[in-house]
Amino acid sequence: MPAYQAPLRDISFVVNELLESEQLYQTLPGYEEATQDLMDAIIEEAAKFAENVLSPLNQSGDEEGCRWEDGTVTTPAGFAEAYQQYVANGWPALSANVDTGGQGLPNLLSIIVNELAGTANWSWLMYPGLSLGAVKTVEAHGDPEQKDKYLSKLVSGEWTGTMCLTEAQCGSDLGLLRTKAEPQADGTYAIHGTKIFISAGEHDMADNIVHIVLARLPDAPAGTKGISLFIVPKFKVNDAGDIAERNAVHCASIEKKMGIKASATCVLNFDGATGYLIGPPNKGLNCMFTFMNTARIGTAIQGLAHGQLAFEGALSYARERLAMRSLSGPKNPDGPADPIIVHPNVRRMLLTQKAFVEGSRALIYFLAQQGDIVDKGNAEEAQVAEDLMSLLTPIGKAFVTETGYEVANIGVQIYGGHGFIKEWGMEQIVRDARISMLYEGTTGIQALDLLGRKVLGSGGKLLLGFTAMIDELCAAEPAAECTGFIETLRSCKDEWLELSMQIGEAAMQNPEEAGAAAVDYLMYSGYVTLAYFWARMAVLSQRKIDESPDGDVAFYAAKLKTARFYFDRLLPRTLAHKQLILSGADNLMDMPEAMFDL
Amino acid sequence: MPAYQAPLRDISFVVNELLESEQLYQTLPGYEEATQDLMDAIIEEAAKFAENVLSPLNQSGDEEGCRWEDGTVTTPAGFAEAYQQYVANGWPALSANVDTGGQGLPNLLSIIVNELAGTANWSWLMYPGLSLGAVKTVEAHGDPEQKDKYLSKLVSGEWTGTMCLTEAQCGSDLGLLRTKAEPQADGTYAIHGTKIFISAGEHDMADNIVHIVLARLPDAPAGTKGISLFIVPKFKVNDAGDIAERNAVHCASIEKKMGIKASATCVLNFDGATGYLIGPPNKGLNCMFTFMNTARIGTAIQGLAHGQLAFEGALSYARERLAMRSLSGPKNPDGPADPIIVHPNVRRMLLTQKAFVEGSRALIYFLAQQGDIVDKGNAEEAQVAEDLMSLLTPIGKAFVTETGYEVANIGVQIYGGHGFIKEWGMEQIVRDARISMLYEGTTGIQALDLLGRKVLGSGGKLLLGFTAMIDELCAAEPAAECTGFIETLRSCKDEWLELSMQIGEAAMQNPEEAGAAAVDYLMYSGYVTLAYFWARMAVLSQRKIDESPDGDVAFYAAKLKTARFYFDRLLPRTLAHKQLILSGADNLMDMPEAMFDL
Repeated sequence: MPAYQAPLRDISFVVNELLESEQLYQTLPGYEEATQDLMDAIIEEAAKFAENVLSPLNQSGDEEGCRWEDGTVTTPAGFAEAYQQYVANGWPALSANVDTGGQGLPNLLSIIVNELAGTANWSWLMYPGLSLGAVKTVEAHGDPEQKDKYLSKLVSGEWTGTMCLTEAQCGSDLGLLRTKAEPQADGTYAIHGTKIFISAGEHDMADNIVHIVLARLPDAPAGTKGISLFIVPKFKVNDAGDIAERNAVHCASIEKKMGIKASATCVLNFDGATGYLIGPPNKGLNCMFTFMNTARIGTAIQGLAHGQLAFEGALSYARERLAMRSLSGPKNPDGPADPIIVHPNVRRMLLTQKAFVEGSRALIYFLAQQGDIVDKGNAEEAQVAEDLMSLLTPIGKAFVTETGYEVANIGVQIYGGHGFIKEWGMEQIVRDARISMLYEGTTGIQALDLLGRKVLGSGGKLLLGFTAMIDELCAAEPAAECTGFIETLRSCKDEWLELSMQIGEAAMQNPEEAGAAAVDYLMYSGYVTLAYFWARMAVLSQRKIDESPDGDVAFYAAKLKTARFYFDRLLPRTLAHKQLILSGADNLMDMPEAMFDL
Repeated sequence: MPAYQAPLRDISFVVNELLESEQLYQTLPGYEEATQDLMDAIIEEAAKFAENVLSPLNQSGDEEGCRWEDGTVTTPAGFAEAYQQYVANGWPALSANVDTGGQGLPNLLSIIVNELAGTANWSWLMYPGLSLGAVKTVEAHGDPEQKDKYLSKLVSGEWTGTMCLTEAQCGSDLGLLRTKAEPQADGTYAIHGTKIFISAGEHDMADNIVHIVLARLPDAPAGTKGISLFIVPKFKVNDAGDIAERNAVHCASIEKKMGIKASATCVLNFDGATGYLIGPPNKGLNCMFTFMNTARIGTAIQGLAHGQLAFEGALSYARERLAMRSLSGPKNPDGPADPIIVHPNVRRMLLTQKAFVEGSRALIYFLAQQGDIVDKGNAEEAQVAEDLMSLLTPIGKAFVTETGYEVANIGVQIYGGHGFIKEWGMEQIVRDARISMLYEGTTGIQALDLLGRKVLGSGGKLLLGFTAMIDELCAAEPAAECTGFIETLRSCKDEWLELSMQIGEAAMQNPEEAGAAAVDYLMYSGYVTLAYFWARMAVLSQRKIDESPDGDVAFYAAKLKTARFYFDRLLPRTLAHKQLILSGADNLMDMPEAMFDL
């Protein structure tokens, strides 16, 4: 497996040049300390940790996997030590609130640290990464005692957290969940039920695990309106905040999976475990929606992370591996053959990887920054940012993971047969990446969220919020080199709006039309969204070249060439998606169920 | 893992109704015995063997893998016994020549048996499947003594064979191979070198293994024109045809792989092993090209096989799994939710699987039948068939495996999180399928073969051979229900020819243009090719309905609806591929190599 080298130049480009983060954070009360110097320093430190500590454990972790024995889970060699180092260095607290022991830095920084750690070793990141849901839930909905007992330990990383949603019979449709919470005389609840797919549900990295559990009260209405949230700690916590007796929640087994094998995916049995109601009864799902966007951006990072690692591996191999001669004459005449990077199809694959990875990075950092504006901006700014997040998060989650999986598969393809062999590390990236289109809402669920809830549900308002940004970019006079990008972007934007209206009209006649169009609409939207970021990066890069002809011209020239590739060779995929959207629902709904296996 | 149920009705439809095999074989001298009754009976027996013997070993084989110890390889439990049963029942000899102990039946039947066996257990099929190359090589190029010694044992399946091509430094570019063959005083050769990725290179299923090895004679020219073929048996064979002393070829290790884990992928060391020259010196690659098409169709089956298994699993799950309500009102009002097959996006995924699988089956069987015409038809028929095979084989190999991988991934997607868990068996299909786009020539290599060697290399002649068939279908008056398919097919065909000419012209100016267009051209060609088969199946199905309104109407109606889905929702992907082809080579070649990681 190629050693991970963090793409610090590109990260800096997006953070400092494209998104002008320092300037933004100067205007957000509480984030003024986030100067470029500070951010760069933190990112560099995180890169070292990722490259030197986490990356070397990626392949061994996959090989070794987790061990379950009598309810305990042993993580692969080195994982717990790496986690201790992570906690000791204060990483978990980076963007947590100062009043719970956090460093109060922008969310963007956490996202970047997660990208770096997750590219080096996604399985490992699942342990600290899942704490976020618990932290956010307790922060937003906990009473003062709950906050006192759990928050500082979660924020410091001494304890980790989980989100216990899924049960065997329900994943996407949480209305079907059956776990019960019986009120006890002392005001606590006895939790009974079995949860599955609980990442980091049991492990040997931290002293306690704080489970946030979805369950039903005895009198709860059926469906999603009868779900409440409970804190169920692995070890109860006494009034002094110390660990007390073991709670009746146990890991019954861990799953054998295609990938992220070093991440323990647990079946958790709650056998009358003591739980503490958090938030109002029966409002559990509403409470969770408040930070669903954050969790989904967290998963979007996975597409970026695996894409980056696959690209690095494929590029180094394409430079070294010799096969055939270039069609336009030998490029390595003294060698027995040319390096495969001379071949147009290999370049096509590498540029596909590069364009998706760099475009996704811009989109995800932009989303993270919007989260910071939601948190610290004034009401008006926050509303604009929240609307952008609402629209773009399902796109980020589904489009970045779908294309990330394509990029991971290209990594294997460039290695040829060697890509299929474990030793080279490329196949692991594909296996690890495959989950990203499934958890935190499948691509299909994200697509319904985007089209149904966000675009049509807002009567087009959320979409117009983003297309206004596109209009703004298009209105600024670009350099002559970039007018082609801008013109194409403008007509894509017009077509996107037109298509959205057409689907809306069709869905009014037949509600199946939205479901029939949703995934192609999401992919279409993703390509246009990335076109916006690529156009913006191109305009900026051209300006940098024009302003400083002696500057980092090669970097900006590479951006312009990659932008061109994106517009020439990836964006045209919208042609097919548009046609599929317009083909309507009948070609899906006409087939009687019994005919599917005829 | 869902138990495999062989799609006998669809197989019969393609063999008997679409391709009218009995009628054809009556006209091919030597194949007259291949009546519908006989073929159906053989296929049914093979289906039972696949369902009852091989399918139960698929998941356990993956879990167990192969064991290497001191040069020997132990296959998973049950594999060797299944192979003995396969040999005892005469399956390996099905379509081998009668004069070497074969049953002399059409190649089509072997292809179908391989599909059935391979769908049930692809890893297992790799052991007998790889013998084919050795048989064909000895048949075509062996001297009488070599034929006597090796052929009947290979044909009966008592021994197996391998093709030893790849070395660590060369896969696609065999010109770089280094294995040496030193002439000995007794007329044999001492083979020195190391081969990798040798499937079934060592195992415990048969008494002897006949390796066909590519190596260089001392005075051989460099590159592909200096490669000769050698027979290197694991155990030497004495003049009586019996096994004698062990030869100096040993398995140094087996690979740890992403999938097909029950197939032993061997590193073979030849330490002065005794080899026997087969065919003329330095003409080894030419000799191999004679049956390259057969080997590639063999790999194309893998896309079909994994697709079928993923479709069966996904369909049964989609009917059972309950989640959400249909957007147009409950379809399972007495249950807690509707089965997910009611949701348009799930139907879209299932129909994508169905349309690719059934379309691919038609294409592959058609190709197999062309092979039979090449073997037994008169000179004129054989030439037409050979031209069709030349054109369509790289499409079959690359397009069917690429779309087969998509279909396998859809299987995982429909299972949601459960798709990622080993227990359900869906993720294994993805892992097993991933190799199919790599071995026997990657998709990129197939694309260069199609566009460079076949389409442009024949000056368009091979393409016109196939479009003449399309014209023929379009010229026949279709039923009103099918005119839409025919019109669309006709315009696709026109566009395909036009695009081919455009690429040809561009490539005359700049040879990189062909390489830049090749993969999109191959995928474009694949979609049009499948459109031909879907239109043909639709026309036939409508005719069957019109002729026998009391017949198997539901089956034919399902075909028509699937055809409509194909034309509405898969064929439009050509819109994107066309645009990408036309975007030219500059967007790939302009990027200096040093800029890729900027």
